[in-house]
Amino acid sequence: MSTRSAAAPEAHWPDDRPGLIPVLPLVHVAWSDGILTAGEHRVFRELILESPALGPDDREALEPWLDPDSPPSPTAVRRLRDTIRTLAGPAAVDSVSLTELGYDIARESGGHRPWRDPDARHALAAAEAALGVLGREAVQRLLEPAAPEPEAPAPSLFDSERLADWLAQPRRELRDRILGLLQEPEFQMDIEIDRATHRQRALEAVQRLADEGIGALAYPEAYGGAASPAASVTAFETLAYGDLSVVVKFGVQFGLFGGSVYQLGTAKHHERFLERIGTLELPGCYAMTELGHGSNVRDLETIATWDAEADGFRIRTPHEGAGKEWIGNAALHGRMATVFAQLEVGGEAHGVHAFLVPIRDDDGKTMPGVRIADSGPKVGLNGIDNGRLWFDDVVVPRDALLDRFASVTEDGRYESPIPSAGRRFFTMLGTLVAGRISIAAASVSVAKTALTIGVRYSARRRQFGPEGRPEVAVLDYTTQRRLLLPRLAATYAHHFATRDLIERYEASLGEGADESATRELEVRAAGLKALASWHAMDTLQAVRESMGGRGYHAENRLGRLKNDTDIFTTFEGANVVLLQLVAKGLLTRFREQMGDLRLWSAVRYLADRAQTRVAELNPVIVRRDDEDHLRDPDFHRAAFEYREERLLGSVARRLKGRIDDGMESFDAMNAVQDHMVTLARAHTERRMLEAFLDGVRRAPTPGISESLRTLAGLFALSRLEADRAWFLEAGYFEPRKSEAIRAQVNALCAEVAEEAELLVDAFGIPDAVLQAPDGL
Amino acid sequence: MSTRSAAAPEAHWPDDRPGLIPVLPLVHVAWSDGILTAGEHRVFRELILESPALGPDDREALEPWLDPDSPPSPTAVRRLRDTIRTLAGPAAVDSVSLTELGYDIARESGGHRPWRDPDARHALAAAEAALGVLGREAVQRLLEPAAPEPEAPAPSLFDSERLADWLAQPRRELRDRILGLLQEPEFQMDIEIDRATHRQRALEAVQRLADEGIGALAYPEAYGGAASPAASVTAFETLAYGDLSVVVKFGVQFGLFGGSVYQLGTAKHHERFLERIGTLELPGCYAMTELGHGSNVRDLETIATWDAEADGFRIRTPHEGAGKEWIGNAALHGRMATVFAQLEVGGEAHGVHAFLVPIRDDDGKTMPGVRIADSGPKVGLNGIDNGRLWFDDVVVPRDALLDRFASVTEDGRYESPIPSAGRRFFTMLGTLVAGRISIAAASVSVAKTALTIGVRYSARRRQFGPEGRPEVAVLDYTTQRRLLLPRLAATYAHHFATRDLIERYEASLGEGADESATRELEVRAAGLKALASWHAMDTLQAVRESMGGRGYHAENRLGRLKNDTDIFTTFEGANVVLLQLVAKGLLTRFREQMGDLRLWSAVRYLADRAQTRVAELNPVIVRRDDEDHLRDPDFHRAAFEYREERLLGSVARRLKGRIDDGMESFDAMNAVQDHMVTLARAHTERRMLEAFLDGVRRAPTPGISESLRTLAGLFALSRLEADRAWFLEAGYFEPRKSEAIRAQVNALCAEVAEEAELLVDAFGIPDAVLQAPDGL
Repeated sequence: MSTRSAAAPEAHWPDDRPGLIPVLPLVHVAWSDGILTAGEHRVFRELILESPALGPDDREALEPWLDPDSPPSPTAVRRLRDTIRTLAGPAAVDSVSLTELGYDIARESGGHRPWRDPDARHALAAAEAALGVLGREAVQRLLEPAAPEPEAPAPSLFDSERLADWLAQPRRELRDRILGLLQEPEFQMDIEIDRATHRQRALEAVQRLADEGIGALAYPEAYGGAASPAASVTAFETLAYGDLSVVVKFGVQFGLFGGSVYQLGTAKHHERFLERIGTLELPGCYAMTELGHGSNVRDLETIATWDAEADGFRIRTPHEGAGKEWIGNAALHGRMATVFAQLEVGGEAHGVHAFLVPIRDDDGKTMPGVRIADSGPKVGLNGIDNGRLWFDDVVVPRDALLDRFASVTEDGRYESPIPSAGRRFFTMLGTLVAGRISIAAASVSVAKTALTIGVRYSARRRQFGPEGRPEVAVLDYTTQRRLLLPRLAATYAHHFATRDLIERYEASLGEGADESATRELEVRAAGLKALASWHAMDTLQAVRESMGGRGYHAENRLGRLKNDTDIFTTFEGANVVLLQLVAKGLLTRFREQMGDLRLWSAVRYLADRAQTRVAELNPVIVRRDDEDHLRDPDFHRAAFEYREERLLGSVARRLKGRIDDGMESFDAMNAVQDHMVTLARAHTERRMLEAFLDGVRRAPTPGISESLRTLAGLFALSRLEADRAWFLEAGYFEPRKSEAIRAQVNALCAEVAEEAELLVDAFGIPDAVLQAPDGL
Repeated sequence: MSTRSAAAPEAHWPDDRPGLIPVLPLVHVAWSDGILTAGEHRVFRELILESPALGPDDREALEPWLDPDSPPSPTAVRRLRDTIRTLAGPAAVDSVSLTELGYDIARESGGHRPWRDPDARHALAAAEAALGVLGREAVQRLLEPAAPEPEAPAPSLFDSERLADWLAQPRRELRDRILGLLQEPEFQMDIEIDRATHRQRALEAVQRLADEGIGALAYPEAYGGAASPAASVTAFETLAYGDLSVVVKFGVQFGLFGGSVYQLGTAKHHERFLERIGTLELPGCYAMTELGHGSNVRDLETIATWDAEADGFRIRTPHEGAGKEWIGNAALHGRMATVFAQLEVGGEAHGVHAFLVPIRDDDGKTMPGVRIADSGPKVGLNGIDNGRLWFDDVVVPRDALLDRFASVTEDGRYESPIPSAGRRFFTMLGTLVAGRISIAAASVSVAKTALTIGVRYSARRRQFGPEGRPEVAVLDYTTQRRLLLPRLAATYAHHFATRDLIERYEASLGEGADESATRELEVRAAGLKALASWHAMDTLQAVRESMGGRGYHAENRLGRLKNDTDIFTTFEGANVVLLQLVAKGLLTRFREQMGDLRLWSAVRYLADRAQTRVAELNPVIVRRDDEDHLRDPDFHRAAFEYREERLLGSVARRLKGRIDDGMESFDAMNAVQDHMVTLARAHTERRMLEAFLDGVRRAPTPGISESLRTLAGLFALSRLEADRAWFLEAGYFEPRKSEAIRAQVNALCAEVAEEAELLVDAFGIPDAVLQAPDGL
């Protein structure tokens, strides 16, 4: 810029010329920025002076303020700014451009009249464009200078071993025992293991777990167990640090097969089979899914007809496409299967029931009437011998029916303690909840493995750097932090949410658990299974990419883990289907709450809603963008609750509107399907945040609590950031708040980066289990 | 609801009681909705009547309107609505709640005064909450009834073979020839092929391609080629329908190794090697990446010292971590390598240069001084023998230097036609552009494969359905459509953008191509490589999940494709690094444009900006949410341009601000890194949209053009939807527009679903190449 000549304009703007007020902001910015070249100043000058709104006197008064050879003094520029601030009302900060701001401040003085001419506005807009600044940003800068970006405070480095110990509770002993087992030779699988070997090795590993009594943990003590389903899930969770074929085969045998016998069967079944299942003496299958029916279990086609003469049931696959598919343990190792089939008694259909059907004899020969095929090579989990099953009029005795919820009497009468077929079906399916909780927990373990590798690598790997200085750790790059650290925070959120779920599950099986608690548990399990399995996949992919070529080395495990985990989003309930279940559960509860509305409860409910609503209307909330507010857990909780509440209301309304308009309920559900999925996510994330904040409260030391609070803030804000479009649409955020959240996520990432290694150390995965060379 | 009694209120609201106006909207909604139960009506009534703003006369007049046992007639309710609409000003539609609307319409009449009491407002808000409606939505419904959701018009089913033929241009013959080859036994790889066999089979397949003259396509005719780099990329693109190890090995040999000899070498190198490379007589490597330096090539550590006595160079790996890594063809098949090393001549460092170094003799024995290790098993692409290389003072002759851009004279003087070392480095790296274009093109082929499988499966697979009716094709589900169809649209966008890029590339190598065109090409290639490779991964994952268990069968290819494609986001430039290159390129051009601004060009440039800006200020644009507007390609283009333009300005400003504040340029770049990546995406997507719209214009028939226009609309709107938070923050969208876009994406998905199978048929992948059983 040229140096200031002696002919600099006077230090005061010509106050006597109100017609100049609209150009004030532009002139100020033209000088205050100091980025315009002399040539650009000339362009700017011509465009400004072109305005038909300026009289000759105006032009004369303005000219000295537009001369690049004689710039105004810094003091004059600052005074100009003060003048603008004095003139500007509180709403002025919302002006979208400097031109608009000029008009706003001119309106009071009446000096804007000649400027109403559209050509005048055009000339001003062109001049503003010539400044090359962004209107809204420039207005904000001019009226309230941006606060300096928050710097990361000195980290409070906590004791990661103390945190590790706390995270390993409850049942630390069991976890440690399994982590010990995972280091033994039985549990090591070669990187390039072939399918046949992998299947054999996985069987041996599961046998070892059975020998250790770990398979039977959920069963009653009488059958070699510990009567603790939560311990069983904990075992599953911990095993998921190792080979995933082993853990899934473990789940097939003890959770699905054994669980179906335990939960759908009665004493006679327990007595006869449970111990042999827990020791793997009786390897079995859970034969629900069919080729033609994956998600839609209710319409599966295998038939079980009551045959009075045989005093038993005839199991029949009506056509090729109704064969059972993906049945774990079926291709090689299973001897018996829990087969789900449509029960017909005396020509009457009673819906889906479960039957114990022998599929191989003790020598491993396929039973007559049963046909078995190998499901073949899969994307992952090739240590499991999935197979297909067809039944050609296989007769099983009367007590093959797992008869806790329904039975057929000796004289061929169908009986059930649950009168409604629909209710019976869902009660039966409810036993799937343990599987979903287990998959959620295993997904969290996988995410922990991935992040332990990715964070350690990123903290050590250096690449690029400032001229002449050493290269920079890749964890110091903004994009790398954004790739890893919000996912680290989400992994902690999932950790607390799943642990909470596991304990609730155990409690729900005790005395006095009611039906609504059970339904609530199913909703939680479905939501967490879906979100956790997606989170694991997403985290594996992010870590793979964050490590560049190193992530592509098979020895770093990410490929195998990705391939194995991929199906987590599909089995035990496809995620999209599960999230619809969650939404349906919420809608049912909502309808019930609204339905038998007694005055008092109604008023309380409505008062709660009103409170939320008031917050919505409060301009302070939608605008506040200071750090204290943005990091306040109360703000996070309120935003998560608001989102869920409002989505629930709008889904209910949209559904009802369509049904009232005569749409079939199935079509109405489909029309709002994406909306329902969004609601289910919002609900589950709210639960996750609550569990996380509860974890912060319960933390064993103030240092850990503080670190977790920061991490919970990153979780909450990164979710709000991801969904900020929704909040903007709802008017819950103003644009500047939304932008401030983005900046705050970056600031929190910088803080968490300082402790990231300690936070992954606290997952407590021993090197000998982690194995990935770049994660040690 | 109770039936209407004879005592229904009069058909007119008491006009003489202005104090009742604030409750008008609430009362209307309470009746118009028809969803309140009698109990809820009573709660509502109590809450309304609680208001301290109501005098006794008001209460009396209001009572008949609040009695659930005597509801007003539909006519009365409609008249109430008309009254509200008459009273409401144009701004009323923006009210966030019915309460606010009531206050708004009451203000004019003066009847709102008693309602200023905060308790009055509270009572009203509570009553509104009791209605259980969403304020803003209810206000909009009340003031302007929503238009019925657009129904999908009857599809214009076009001739997909005609489209297929057009998409196969140019060079359809070459494509067909390669699709024919891919069906031959050499190109079939078993699902469970082991690594050693895969490497051997891939070598044989590449040999077959060499024999067919396909490897040499890019080279001059004198060396067996066709002098058409575009043909070579086309071959690469088409090969990517088959085994990806083969195509990448093809690229290593003919593109990277051969390309480096051709483009960095001079006549003597071409003469001696090019023909032998094209026939695979001389298998070679491209040894750039090092263990310690992946992305940061400029700082790689291998050293080439000029040795006057030997009349050559000594190639040396200074320490273990400086070994070359991931070098394709190195572990087994390569005989020679283009080695990138820091050149030192007489103690002076001249930066990175490329040298031809023999690594194995004709018998395959490793050359003295060279150490080779296998890179080991990888996540995918295991048909390629990647290896590591270390050099222990290996002497190569003077003409081993690929000397197009720099040479060392006989008397040991360093000479270069490019004086600046930085410029020289980037010119040399510029030769990487072909690789990036090839990866982009191959990524598009992979996405086409995935979608062909996923769309066909989803159109045929049925699951669930309305009570008593057949199950529904999964492609009829909203979530399934959203999973597949925007990705189908994006695949077409990528198709047109890559094809355009390939032709530009060919043109850039002709006479008269200038430097700025070259830089522009590099920016396009970097951007498209990044976005296309992410798109391929993302599409594979979406298709896998969309197919549930079927997607997990290895025979459906998604697993192998995912594993193989995963590294596309890393090699030939890590995506995040490439996007930063794109952003830097845009910033440089921006600075140049602003820098040597002559008056005329400046005014034109600024006028363009102003035009965008004017659109921004136009409330019609930010609000319009009708179908015509939302589907208008001009709107899409304007929105994409606006985003890019504004991001460019704000990145420039943020960078400059930081540098002005004394930050080092490296740190400043890091601080705005995520912002730069966003800019680069916005730029590349804008280019993609332009290429797509250009494709729509050039389409061979009106039917095809119409279908592609719909598809381009889906691409544009789904991108705008994904980025709607940004547009909301910028004030470019109002919330209702943003919501309307979401609804329009659903409507477009429904239209595209009708033609989805034809659109994937048009990719023209023969069944014998596609192979996936569920995609045939």
